[in-house]
Amino acid sequence: MSRPKILITNDDSIHARGIKALYRAMCQIGDAQVVAPESEKSGVGHGITLITPLRARHHTDDDGFSGWAVNGTPADCVKLATKELLAEKPDLVVSGINRGSNTATNTIYSGTVSGALEAAILGIPAVAFSLTSFEKVDLSFAEEAAMLISRKVLEHGLPADTVLNVNIPPAAREDIKGYKITRQGRGRYEDAYERRVDTMGRPYFWLAGTRVMLDEEDDLDEVAIENNYVSITPIHFDLTNNKMLTPLKDWNLSL
Amino acid sequence: MSRPKILITNDDSIHARGIKALYRAMCQIGDAQVVAPESEKSGVGHGITLITPLRARHHTDDDGFSGWAVNGTPADCVKLATKELLAEKPDLVVSGINRGSNTATNTIYSGTVSGALEAAILGIPAVAFSLTSFEKVDLSFAEEAAMLISRKVLEHGLPADTVLNVNIPPAAREDIKGYKITRQGRGRYEDAYERRVDTMGRPYFWLAGTRVMLDEEDDLDEVAIENNYVSITPIHFDLTNNKMLTPLKDWNLSL
Repeated sequence: MSRPKILITNDDSIHARGIKALYRAMCQIGDAQVVAPESEKSGVGHGITLITPLRARHHTDDDGFSGWAVNGTPADCVKLATKELLAEKPDLVVSGINRGSNTATNTIYSGTVSGALEAAILGIPAVAFSLTSFEKVDLSFAEEAAMLISRKVLEHGLPADTVLNVNIPPAAREDIKGYKITRQGRGRYEDAYERRVDTMGRPYFWLAGTRVMLDEEDDLDEVAIENNYVSITPIHFDLTNNKMLTPLKDWNLSL
Repeated sequence: MSRPKILITNDDSIHARGIKALYRAMCQIGDAQVVAPESEKSGVGHGITLITPLRARHHTDDDGFSGWAVNGTPADCVKLATKELLAEKPDLVVSGINRGSNTATNTIYSGTVSGALEAAILGIPAVAFSLTSFEKVDLSFAEEAAMLISRKVLEHGLPADTVLNVNIPPAAREDIKGYKITRQGRGRYEDAYERRVDTMGRPYFWLAGTRVMLDEEDDLDEVAIENNYVSITPIHFDLTNNKMLTPLKDWNLSL
């Protein structure tokens, strides 16, 4: 295979540390191009832009890092990149490296993950990478893990509807236990809102909340992270709960 | 059981015909309250608002229909309703009636569906309703179907992680064949963008695209709709592709 063509996106924006780290890693294994949101899109889920137009402008940093900045979501970036901005269809799409985990129930809110899922919908193998810390930690092991997993995906391929959701602990390399294939856990946030009043006396609400850890089995994503493993969860976009098909038929719904 | 408390949301906004139809239907079976986006949020997927504050204002129409209008997504509406706006936790959350289908791959872009999924995350049984037409069709059969299915959900309950994704054909009642329990299909849009130039000479892109029907099995959502059945797909938010766990272990990823 000639050098693979790799598209990079994220949800923390083209200005984030994580996407520059992922770009460095992907330049080691192929021809990397960046198409990413021009501003932070955390928590956009699998949103796409339908009722406003998209714009793309070329972005270059002082250090030579460059790419397209798009006024949309990660899913928009992947669609627009493959349909308009790139000369050729990529061989691989990688999304991240996200600042903060995308594990358990929070997976469905993740713009990072949706960038990868959108690629799968378009028929391109894809991986989402997240570092499970909001601190400004060293990204060199995360880069190494992204290279290893991306190479394996290029070598083995992935089923058409499946992407890998990879979460990387913020530990030093010598404290990492290894790579673990995991399932999505059940942990979630216990939501709360903080009610404040603006300078005109009108109320507004900020989402707050505390993380609830609900899992114990060591093949679940959040538990693997707690144990300092790199967690790799294969996820797909078929939401059908097959176990409920038969019970629902017993409801005997009829006109 | 005393009259059930029912929360209604959608993604077409509090001004949409569909949410008023769903309100009429739910008033037949319980105490209905509306908390919905103040403007259209189609295609937001499971987005939530993290980096701007939320506001809620009370909305009343000339015809007496009223509720809370929120400057966020359907998932925001369900979170804010249950945590701040409603006096008591609802017994049921219904989302819709959406203008246009939410079937096959498009399920993951749907704000309507995410309103229901958010309720499930919060531990409340929930159903998403969509009418598979963009035309201004008669909604009386859709209201009837929403009542029947909602009553059944209140009677039987649903597993904690599962919601029903209901799609209703725009046919006259006498042409409806019945209710069918279905799986999510594989159909999707073949995307394209229309490149235009604004009045200042700058390019912008509108998402366009044509629907691709990829399914044939008659227990898939889009096929059921084509055959004039009401399609009921049980969906959940565990995205794990369990079939890939063993093949991935054979990749032997190691440090």
